[in-house]
Amino acid sequence: MESTVEPRLEWTSDIFPEDHTYLTFLKKVFRHEFRKNGFRRISTPLIEETSLLRKIYPENNNQYGLYHFQTKNDTDVTLLPAASVGIMRAYLENEKFEWLQPVYYYYMERAFRQNRIRKEFYTFGWEVIGESDPVIDAQNIYMIYTALQKIGLWEDIKIKINSFGNAKEIEKYTDELQSFFENKKQVMSEETAENFKNNVFAPFHSKDEDDLILAASAPSIIKFLKKDNKKYYADFKTYLDDLSIPYIEDHTLFFPEDFYTHAIWKFEDSSWEELASGWRYDLLARSLGSPKDYGAAGFSIDSMRIIEMLKEKAITIKNKDHIDLYFVQLGDEAKRVVFPLSLQAREKWINTLTSLGTPSIKEQMLKAQRIGSQYVVLVWVMEARNGIFQVRNIPAWTQEEVKKEELIDYIIGKIWKDSLNFYEPSKDLVQWEIKKDETES
Amino acid sequence: MESTVEPRLEWTSDIFPEDHTYLTFLKKVFRHEFRKNGFRRISTPLIEETSLLRKIYPENNNQYGLYHFQTKNDTDVTLLPAASVGIMRAYLENEKFEWLQPVYYYYMERAFRQNRIRKEFYTFGWEVIGESDPVIDAQNIYMIYTALQKIGLWEDIKIKINSFGNAKEIEKYTDELQSFFENKKQVMSEETAENFKNNVFAPFHSKDEDDLILAASAPSIIKFLKKDNKKYYADFKTYLDDLSIPYIEDHTLFFPEDFYTHAIWKFEDSSWEELASGWRYDLLARSLGSPKDYGAAGFSIDSMRIIEMLKEKAITIKNKDHIDLYFVQLGDEAKRVVFPLSLQAREKWINTLTSLGTPSIKEQMLKAQRIGSQYVVLVWVMEARNGIFQVRNIPAWTQEEVKKEELIDYIIGKIWKDSLNFYEPSKDLVQWEIKKDETES
Repeated sequence: MESTVEPRLEWTSDIFPEDHTYLTFLKKVFRHEFRKNGFRRISTPLIEETSLLRKIYPENNNQYGLYHFQTKNDTDVTLLPAASVGIMRAYLENEKFEWLQPVYYYYMERAFRQNRIRKEFYTFGWEVIGESDPVIDAQNIYMIYTALQKIGLWEDIKIKINSFGNAKEIEKYTDELQSFFENKKQVMSEETAENFKNNVFAPFHSKDEDDLILAASAPSIIKFLKKDNKKYYADFKTYLDDLSIPYIEDHTLFFPEDFYTHAIWKFEDSSWEELASGWRYDLLARSLGSPKDYGAAGFSIDSMRIIEMLKEKAITIKNKDHIDLYFVQLGDEAKRVVFPLSLQAREKWINTLTSLGTPSIKEQMLKAQRIGSQYVVLVWVMEARNGIFQVRNIPAWTQEEVKKEELIDYIIGKIWKDSLNFYEPSKDLVQWEIKKDETES
Repeated sequence: MESTVEPRLEWTSDIFPEDHTYLTFLKKVFRHEFRKNGFRRISTPLIEETSLLRKIYPENNNQYGLYHFQTKNDTDVTLLPAASVGIMRAYLENEKFEWLQPVYYYYMERAFRQNRIRKEFYTFGWEVIGESDPVIDAQNIYMIYTALQKIGLWEDIKIKINSFGNAKEIEKYTDELQSFFENKKQVMSEETAENFKNNVFAPFHSKDEDDLILAASAPSIIKFLKKDNKKYYADFKTYLDDLSIPYIEDHTLFFPEDFYTHAIWKFEDSSWEELASGWRYDLLARSLGSPKDYGAAGFSIDSMRIIEMLKEKAITIKNKDHIDLYFVQLGDEAKRVVFPLSLQAREKWINTLTSLGTPSIKEQMLKAQRIGSQYVVLVWVMEARNGIFQVRNIPAWTQEEVKKEELIDYIIGKIWKDSLNFYEPSKDLVQWEIKKDETES
């Protein structure tokens, strides 16, 4: 009989444990970087009201690829295409945080865009809200740059930078681009010429080689920058130079949303695929409806692309998912002995597995070996009754006889100390005493 | 001017850093428990094809509260209401895992249901696929039971258990319930009487007191169990007794989906709110279209409810988000000294913050104190030039003069060793050498 199970949607991913090891590692690396920079984690909903999103992703433009739909109460809602929008919304909605400006938030979330190859994707990033200075943009780049170095990825990565100017400057520049490209539509690819009708930046976003040659010949926004932004952009580059960070100035680097300002940048791998991008968006708060402006900058890292790069370099990750002890058992009597023993082993933080269903001894032994358990204990009816077990050290091909009541100490003595999965949650708990009059008030 | 920012949807949650501390803690607690039980983490997409979901959540029944919608390619897709469906789909789609049966997966994900108060929610859980034995169901309960004990939550928690029988038994039992309730519709609440038309279990799911009295008088499924399932249920209870786990047999405990079999159970807090639930669903694989049956059991924990309980008990969590060093600076010259110094401090794993924008000294000092930084260094033009800093120990109300080049060692010497946010990613990396002939093959 054939399986009729619908496969996953091809634009989504399953992350099986083998790959989750990479994701867990990346989270750990970036969590440490984020934390030592003073950032704290925030999670906002993956769904927001569509009317919020429409303020910055206009409906007449489908280049953003939003997923939106109606709930059963006829609210139109949207799956977040980027975490920054939700974080800014949360910040603006909770004025209590204003006195702590600037705020430093980081996130590790999924996001959704219909116009990407991986339409459901994993993104890490941080946001600085309440400060506007080019040193912050340089710091953002520095953080990713050093983190990628630490995990062995650096060769062939390119950092591209550009300026988004301010609202007035980008408007003038857009006019300039319009007239520059207007009489060159015949040399554009068909798709780009079509996109150009709604978007003067279309040649910049194209993958077509001729379009890119055309784009390269277009004027740069830099000469449209007035005094303040000229200085901002120059300082941004000075900070990068001070930090010895290599970068390429690319006047074709733009993002489709129009709430960006000043510095924008992108990390690309050797095949020009985007790894991370960053922005200043001092206009975002006001675009969403805030009466006040807030300086804001952030970035987002495509964690799945980084995982692919680690794999391409044949890098694997050490992990704590090893099994130290495996009980192979046969028969109800053996199971009744083995089950509480496996619970006791786990209480002592030994990673322990037992076959609890009723597969054959052969299947159980195969499984124990395939998952790489260091020790295997075989318990049949006789062992269950006399309490003396044969303990096999699989990698060493040795076997010893151990008494039931000495088994756990025996294993602890044999495996490496740092192999124990030790953690005592109560150490992290602070139980504040509630005085009687406090509960009554 | 008024803010016109749309607030978050009321059925979603923002998790600000203060609350994220709890979520991070819970993830750590359960990750350790999951790991020592031999489970490994999996993430499947939050979106699956609606036709997959419809096989187990029929369209004519809106008690599941699925969010589904069309993509721009007219594919009907659904946000996952529970992680287990996606995990089983992934398992069935990737036959390579069959030889490793049983598989042990855990997950920590968001899920979505329109018919809950918190319609977007956070859920942790695990799945055992490929084994069917009551000892596994007992082990699932034991894991949650001990984990909740370890984090100080146990009093007032109730564990309810019941059997779902098998397909034949539940069919007979449904007929029995139908005739039992049929002539009692007039004593049901209006809503329950309405729901009863499509669902004979409606009185069991009601919150109305009279409905619950009626439900309590209904027959139990237990007497409809045939020999095998009678034994399964009895063994399940025996294992729980052996583990000294207190439980209540509740014949009104049922879940709306009909792919469950054998043991089902639920953890409730003292106000009868659900904390966690668990099931065996040996019918799920076949319901989804698999030609083969797979024994399967799992559970899901409502992490937000556990966080609420910790807060109600005035329990707070120690965390690593402390700031050890804060640079207060004024003027471009000071900033150019302070910025690289803060990067160096972080390279030594000191959690460090600097005001990089241009707030006043007063604002910066206020912020340093409010975030609780242990050390604050003040750098004006003079300090920047002569390289001698005043270092304040905020909690101790003391101040010392430290030379710029000695600052980082000074701080490391002062703060607790375990306060350093130390982590060396390269230790976790294994770079396998790729031989020339491997890359060429």
